[in-house]
Amino acid sequence: MLKVEHIGIAVKNMESANSLFSKLFNKAPYKLEKVESEGVATSFFQMGETKIELLEAETEDSAIAKFIEKKGEGIHHIAYEVENIESEMKRLEEEGFQLINKAPKKGADNKLVCFLHPKSTNGVLIELCQEIKK
Amino acid sequence: MLKVEHIGIAVKNMESANSLFSKLFNKAPYKLEKVESEGVATSFFQMGETKIELLEAETEDSAIAKFIEKKGEGIHHIAYEVENIESEMKRLEEEGFQLINKAPKKGADNKLVCFLHPKSTNGVLIELCQEIKK
Repeated sequence: MLKVEHIGIAVKNMESANSLFSKLFNKAPYKLEKVESEGVATSFFQMGETKIELLEAETEDSAIAKFIEKKGEGIHHIAYEVENIESEMKRLEEEGFQLINKAPKKGADNKLVCFLHPKSTNGVLIELCQEIKK
Repeated sequence: MLKVEHIGIAVKNMESANSLFSKLFNKAPYKLEKVESEGVATSFFQMGETKIELLEAETEDSAIAKFIEKKGEGIHHIAYEVENIESEMKRLEEEGFQLINKAPKKGADNKLVCFLHPKSTNGVLIELCQEIKK
């Protein structure tokens, strides 16, 4: 793992969350993006080498809608950048971590992603992500 | 704010959490430190420019013990490095954020710290931290 690529934060309302986090960070988000396959709208702030990704549910059955219903707004996941997502998934599965998706899938921000189940990681939802090479 | 200085993760048992996160990150923690004023034991992993800080309660009335009792293990806070903690505290208070401590206090890892109440930050407990200059 190379660095903390981003931290995902579940929010109820993107407009008011963007306004709040713009005040907090003293700058505007640099990108808004919808990820239709996940049923979410996202917004990104750059903070050093790490991005803060706000996540708003666009459909009732999206993971973010369910998270907010259960736990309320707050930190949803930490994403670590990896060089080779397939070899890292293999290594972690052999170490006993539980992969939520068995093959890498397309996420926001031009990334291949895989999630580790929080039951196997001390309650922390972890995403592995690798830039899709052009 | 300059970067994500660290991400704090509340754990029930430091020994097993250190073992788990060592497997996850494929390296050992580089430092263990007790912060007696907060009633916690900490353990640090470096990940790019950001640290992952595991936090175990050492006393029953510590904030970490209460957090785990209420929410279980998981991500506890995000800490942002600032250049001047006092001017940043003033700016954020004027923007309507609620400071938990009104003056900077001594935290782990040679830092002055201030926490923002999650009620004012979309459910995210935020720490500001500034290196103590020698």
